[in-house]
Amino acid sequence: MEEILKKFREKIKEKKMIEGALAVLQWDLETTTPKKGKDYLAEIVGYLSMKEYILTTSKEFEECVEFLSKNLEKLNEIERKEIEELKEDIEKMKKIPAQEYQAYSELVARTQGVWEEAKAENNYEKYKKNLAKIFEYTIKFANYHKKDEKNLYDVILQEYEKGMTSEKLDEFFSLLKSEIVPLLKKVKEAGNPDKKLLQKVDIEKQKQFNRFIGEYLGFDFDRGIGAESEHPFTMNITKNDVRLTTKYIENNPMSAVFSTIHETGHGIYEQQIGDNLQDTILGTGGSMGIHESQSRFYENIIGRDFHFWNHIYKRAQESFQFLKEVKLEDFYREINLVEPSLIRVEADELTYSLHIMVRYEIEKGIVDGTIDVDNLPKVWKEKMKEYLGVVPETDSEGVMQDVHWAAGLVGYFPSYALGSAYSAQIYNTMLKELNIVEILERGELDKIREWLGEKIHKYGKLKTTSEIIKEVTGEELNPKYYIEYLKEKYSKIYNI
Amino acid sequence: MEEILKKFREKIKEKKMIEGALAVLQWDLETTTPKKGKDYLAEIVGYLSMKEYILTTSKEFEECVEFLSKNLEKLNEIERKEIEELKEDIEKMKKIPAQEYQAYSELVARTQGVWEEAKAENNYEKYKKNLAKIFEYTIKFANYHKKDEKNLYDVILQEYEKGMTSEKLDEFFSLLKSEIVPLLKKVKEAGNPDKKLLQKVDIEKQKQFNRFIGEYLGFDFDRGIGAESEHPFTMNITKNDVRLTTKYIENNPMSAVFSTIHETGHGIYEQQIGDNLQDTILGTGGSMGIHESQSRFYENIIGRDFHFWNHIYKRAQESFQFLKEVKLEDFYREINLVEPSLIRVEADELTYSLHIMVRYEIEKGIVDGTIDVDNLPKVWKEKMKEYLGVVPETDSEGVMQDVHWAAGLVGYFPSYALGSAYSAQIYNTMLKELNIVEILERGELDKIREWLGEKIHKYGKLKTTSEIIKEVTGEELNPKYYIEYLKEKYSKIYNI
Repeated sequence: MEEILKKFREKIKEKKMIEGALAVLQWDLETTTPKKGKDYLAEIVGYLSMKEYILTTSKEFEECVEFLSKNLEKLNEIERKEIEELKEDIEKMKKIPAQEYQAYSELVARTQGVWEEAKAENNYEKYKKNLAKIFEYTIKFANYHKKDEKNLYDVILQEYEKGMTSEKLDEFFSLLKSEIVPLLKKVKEAGNPDKKLLQKVDIEKQKQFNRFIGEYLGFDFDRGIGAESEHPFTMNITKNDVRLTTKYIENNPMSAVFSTIHETGHGIYEQQIGDNLQDTILGTGGSMGIHESQSRFYENIIGRDFHFWNHIYKRAQESFQFLKEVKLEDFYREINLVEPSLIRVEADELTYSLHIMVRYEIEKGIVDGTIDVDNLPKVWKEKMKEYLGVVPETDSEGVMQDVHWAAGLVGYFPSYALGSAYSAQIYNTMLKELNIVEILERGELDKIREWLGEKIHKYGKLKTTSEIIKEVTGEELNPKYYIEYLKEKYSKIYNI
Repeated sequence: MEEILKKFREKIKEKKMIEGALAVLQWDLETTTPKKGKDYLAEIVGYLSMKEYILTTSKEFEECVEFLSKNLEKLNEIERKEIEELKEDIEKMKKIPAQEYQAYSELVARTQGVWEEAKAENNYEKYKKNLAKIFEYTIKFANYHKKDEKNLYDVILQEYEKGMTSEKLDEFFSLLKSEIVPLLKKVKEAGNPDKKLLQKVDIEKQKQFNRFIGEYLGFDFDRGIGAESEHPFTMNITKNDVRLTTKYIENNPMSAVFSTIHETGHGIYEQQIGDNLQDTILGTGGSMGIHESQSRFYENIIGRDFHFWNHIYKRAQESFQFLKEVKLEDFYREINLVEPSLIRVEADELTYSLHIMVRYEIEKGIVDGTIDVDNLPKVWKEKMKEYLGVVPETDSEGVMQDVHWAAGLVGYFPSYALGSAYSAQIYNTMLKELNIVEILERGELDKIREWLGEKIHKYGKLKTTSEIIKEVTGEELNPKYYIEYLKEKYSKIYNI
């Protein structure tokens, strides 16, 4: 037993070493690698992914896991959870032929560069072929993995949110729609004030302020960094090496700020994973839904709160000189402006879910064969028109605006909407335990960070999302909190 | 035969994949990894180095190489050279015990972070222990590798410049000293004008100009990038992914410019390696001496030439506004100012070799046991006093100024002096074949780049440095060209 546990830990360590190298390569591809060097790095990603595949599916490793799974009573809680996860991983990985696994890993690593170029050139044709291949693989792998799910899309959803189904999502989105659309209508009728925040601010100045914001929220820059990339993301190698990116837009300084607050939410989650999980496979955030709940909590519930800005508005004015001419009330009003727009990451809270619905329906449609990748630009425009009433002029602002599909993340988008709903539900509990207004007015953001660390972050993958939600809030996911939160907030802001 | 060649190529490919991943990790450690994440990345470096060690020393691979080395007549020129190199590599690697190899790789990866911190804090004590260990390993490995070399330092030199010995270097340096010291004396007597170039320039503006300079010299930014690091360096993953770094100093804009020109010299070399060598182990620059000859050629012979600046001085004035008040003649005079100073990378051409001598004598002394790592700050100051007549107040400006030893590069420094000598000798030939004044006045830098590409760069490791020097210049390394170049240039500038 002891010997097998030792061997098991050695193999896990090796697996983590390869995953760490892969994460660094991935990071490099998205932030650093020159254009013509990307193919070669993608090849290295394919090679190392293959090494991980070989390790994970090796007879030796599988036998270890099998043996331990028959002796669960002799293992501690963490080991038991690891074995449970690994059994599933191995089973799933073994169903994918080695060659396909390597080819897919390489394809994904390569496609992000293609997407970046195609987006810059507004050239969907350039991107289409790779995108179609990614969907092909996704469908193929889902077929390999299918058990008793009702449809292939449900199989895919398990990657991001275990237990989620398209049936549940349909219900969830239809409830959101029925509540948000009428609210949105009233908001539109109420009208918006003129915009004052689209001012030019030097990128260097923006960087300084974004660094301040990250620190202010409690991100530890000794154990993390901030950088730039075409599409903002967070990546963690360990809890001591968490990396955020932002995209700066010279004429829209608040864009990077909210992107930073969002990614900092992800980053704080990873930095607060329990030390006891560091050498295990559980040492990272739970599902994507719970991860997005943290980022969207910081971005919207905290980051767009009046009291949050009241404490740091002077500091903001130092970095963004033009704010000296903008009253805090007007600033608050504008960062909570509701207005249907083209770009998801810049969408307000109210229209945000509609952006997600567009993506959800499209990816579901591609997987079930009712939508063709060739046709996406057209379908995209139609759905944008239907849900948001605005239509992008270019595909760069349309179907190519997000990196997710290019990164193989088909089935990820619903996590954002689920995350928003989780965040409102968690916030509802937090309000009972913490005096949020006082905390924000005093700038004691650490209190919020610590609360989340204790209730959610420290568990990593040790608990499932539904376990955490139940333990923290006392009930399963319940969208009513999200809907109430939106109604209350926006009725007040728009006086409706 | 065919089968073995196929297997051989597969193994080489795998070796190159691991080396590529290691290069990216190395890059990340030096430019990106947060402080507290460095240990973990160093561990991954140790792990992957071990994978390369296992591959290179595996029986299977060795048998391939052995078989092929007995059938050299059936191989092409490139394969023959690869086999020759590999036989040596394998033999050397096998002499190092696996555990020591991994421990050393990890130590080196880790020490660069330690050096960076220690340098920032001016705390030699913090760095000393790691440094001593690196020297211990270097000596240990040299003992493993020793054949018929006269002393251990000569064994180490083979890593950077095959065929070089401390006897030859002693002679070389003593000749340089006997010629440079009297010249320097005269220069000092002649005196220097006041400095005009130590002006504050926004880092963002500096970056723009440095990018321009890189492009102007012919560096291809589609196949490479520029970044920042504590110590400037160049790293290549393939010829399509070559990375330069610079360190920017706000109050000394020309510092980064010459550093960029230097690294661009390395970068152009790597970008011009022959396509036929890409999938081989020969697809990178030859010895360190020839590599430094290219960087120092661009930095000094081209980058400090009057005609070079005459063509781009207007462009420089756009980026560095203060230059509008500085006449080109005064600018030229100041970028060629001779003045003993503390920092090697900012030293003028005349005192530069003296900086190298300090390092050469110290590393030789540590290896032969006459100098103790504990004592380095003191020894450093003494030698600086002796050779340059200036003494650093801090160890950051003294023994900790260079990254080399922290990176395991003991025995590297002589390459800079050899490189300078090679560059003058190559330049002597170039002047017979190209009209350099005209080329520089017209800004046709590509002509110089192409000449170097054709004569030197395309060969990668296919030819030895001494073969290249002989073929290009018609003779072996001959320091007289370097001495003549220095004498002529500085007599003219200082009117002596």
